[in-house]
Amino acid sequence: MTHSSHIITLTTDFGLRDGFVGVMKGVIVARAPQAHIIDISHDIRPFDTVAAGFLLEWAFSYFPQGTVHTVVVDPGVGTTRDVLAFETKGQRILCPDNGILSSLWADRTEPYRLVVAENRALWLDEVSGTFHGRDIFAPLAAFLATGGDLSQVGSPRDQPAVLLPPPQAEFGKKEIQAEIVYIDRFGNLVTTIRRNALLEWLHERNATRRDMIIQLGTSCIHGISDCYGAVEEGLPVVVFDGYGRLEIAINLGRADRVLNAVVRDRVTVSLS
Amino acid sequence: MTHSSHIITLTTDFGLRDGFVGVMKGVIVARAPQAHIIDISHDIRPFDTVAAGFLLEWAFSYFPQGTVHTVVVDPGVGTTRDVLAFETKGQRILCPDNGILSSLWADRTEPYRLVVAENRALWLDEVSGTFHGRDIFAPLAAFLATGGDLSQVGSPRDQPAVLLPPPQAEFGKKEIQAEIVYIDRFGNLVTTIRRNALLEWLHERNATRRDMIIQLGTSCIHGISDCYGAVEEGLPVVVFDGYGRLEIAINLGRADRVLNAVVRDRVTVSLS
Amino acid sequence: MTHSSHIITLTTDFGLRDGFVGVMKGVIVARAPQAHIIDISHDIRPFDTVAAGFLLEWAFSYFPQGTVHTVVVDPGVGTTRDVLAFETKGQRILCPDNGILSSLWADRTEPYRLVVAENRALWLDEVSGTFHGRDIFAPLAAFLATGGDLSQVGSPRDQPAVLLPPPQAEFGKKEIQAEIVYIDRFGNLVTTIRRNALLEWLHERNATRRDMIIQLGTSCIHGISDCYGAVEEGLPVVVFDGYGRLEIAINLGRADRVLNAVVRDRVTVSLS
Repeated sequence: MTHSSHIITLTTDFGLRDGFVGVMKGVIVARAPQAHIIDISHDIRPFDTVAAGFLLEWAFSYFPQGTVHTVVVDPGVGTTRDVLAFETKGQRILCPDNGILSSLWADRTEPYRLVVAENRALWLDEVSGTFHGRDIFAPLAAFLATGGDLSQVGSPRDQPAVLLPPPQAEFGKKEIQAEIVYIDRFGNLVTTIRRNALLEWLHERNATRRDMIIQLGTSCIHGISDCYGAVEEGLPVVVFDGYGRLEIAINLGRADRVLNAVVRDRVTVSLS
Repeated sequence: MTHSSHIITLTTDFGLRDGFVGVMKGVIVARAPQAHIIDISHDIRPFDTVAAGFLLEWAFSYFPQGTVHTVVVDPGVGTTRDVLAFETKGQRILCPDNGILSSLWADRTEPYRLVVAENRALWLDEVSGTFHGRDIFAPLAAFLATGGDLSQVGSPRDQPAVLLPPPQAEFGKKEIQAEIVYIDRFGNLVTTIRRNALLEWLHERNATRRDMIIQLGTSCIHGISDCYGAVEEGLPVVVFDGYGRLEIAINLGRADRVLNAVVRDRVTVSLS
Repeated sequence: MTHSSHIITLTTDFGLRDGFVGVMKGVIVARAPQAHIIDISHDIRPFDTVAAGFLLEWAFSYFPQGTVHTVVVDPGVGTTRDVLAFETKGQRILCPDNGILSSLWADRTEPYRLVVAENRALWLDEVSGTFHGRDIFAPLAAFLATGGDLSQVGSPRDQPAVLLPPPQAEFGKKEIQAEIVYIDRFGNLVTTIRRNALLEWLHERNATRRDMIIQLGTSCIHGISDCYGAVEEGLPVVVFDGYGRLEIAINLGRADRVLNAVVRDRVTVSLS
């Protein structure tokens, strides 16, 4: 049983223009007047469950124990896909069973609970086939944020029905094969290489950040810098970013445009 | 007299870039530290009072009793147009007298009160001619959200000075003439046909959702589905949407582009 | 020592898409559960420290005593630039030492305190080189909003290292030389001429608002109006705007496009 912090986060592809998010919040505060609702993002590319899972896995750990993370990127809304409630490391997550949970599921190193939302008594009386964010997710978030327990949400489930292979980095003997997993609003290229895994790999090889060559397409960048400003304006730079990942950027510029890169592009890291 | 929930919603065309909304919130919390402010939308198309009224009428009912809904889409700011405060169904609304209230006014089935904001003692000391959201609406919202009564805001008014004919659907004997009233960020086409009115119309004719033909331009769609995913990706589908309206969509696509549709386009519904 | 209002404002160029702002809020509420966080803007043009300073100086005065204003437009993140904490008029400001504070610094008419953030015990344990908004600014904001004092943040500093010349208006005998300092989302052209300074200048010359000629490029506008709606739709109009500045607008249109204007364009005001 997790202590409730009254904090609810929202991550959706609803945008902020059409009132969908505002109405979800209305449903929440009608049930949980003390709820503190925090927006993670509502500008996930429509139906991009991979980006939603990426942000969730990252943002998750910065919130206090008992936070309820509500992720509604839901191309299958109203179909037979289930709604899941997952609890681990003192956090609770509500999301459709469509792959969003894949990374967190693959990483589960601590005790966890997974249930499928079946207790309709906790939903709105009238459930549409098109807006479960309001009709199912919002009331469930309010329920959990006010001390409700997962066991009341529904029945235990062994594992999610949909598990996507998380984008990975392959750490070989002499090089690392990775790819771009996310591009942020500055045009920075976030790779699948996690900071801690790379530092360990370097340590085992008695190598340092300066010994590395990062290759993307026809571009080669030498060494990992401490910050964007370590190079002149307009030059490429590799850093560990706010996501805890190896990132390829252009100081004061847009790497996606300058290096002509998109998500899934191959990145190779080797020792010089 | 309505019990206050301390909840204030904001709906504007101010955007989120220029600090207008943030400063409104500063004025509110300086007067009502306990206020819980919820954004409905700040991306209403500039000066689009019809879209503002559409979102208000819909979002309204999902909020707890005593909520103060503040709608500032105000092309006539600083002119002689009045500021209205309306109370019905346990909700309060602040908006310019420019037509935003039209739908709610047309639908008033319960006791209501309408006053025109005249009590300048409740406004900011200095009122600009260009930003009444901050100078008039924000302090009034704070006043009402902390237990203030409409009678202190100003004098009773018989009806709004500006009432726009709400976009309607004409339910004929054999067919329904309607139009597109709103297009959401997914490109879904929201019509003027309300779910409940359509279900009643079908019931009177011993017809079902499957018996219907929905026509938009040269496109014909048969039947109303339970959810977007009821058809293959890229195909058109008609559903009851989160707004409680009949909606024309493309599963996992944009109906506005695929069907080349804009607001005010004619939609005809008939029995097959 | 300033009384804390538990209010924290955020102004960044992070956008709302990538979760950066949400994670900052997670760090804040984990340390300050009672914090009331208000967004001023997250859509500052990337790296535009001048726009950030403009919004800060304006928004500042509408917030209750004890508010903590957190401004993270930080092209030099991770370099040797310092983080400043500034206190004046009962408000606290956290920002990089990169010029953001210039206008407030130039205007300091009341007692103030300035410190450079050095007490790493208040930061996150692990500080990245790329996301000080989360690692330094958020925990400092939480510290100050829960009653922490500037003296604990770091050592006093005589003045910021980086001070930009604030965009100014030159009030001559017969005319005022000014420029466009900001363009809002409606396309309105905000000038460097402050309302109060202009009214004083007019008063000294026994002139009125109607006696003025405002020149921008080849356009001449006569007089200052009370509101946008004082002229017909599509016509240019000069008003005092919500920023407390002289502003050139088009009623119900976009002045930036119609008058083909950009930030830094010269504006001349003279008496007719």
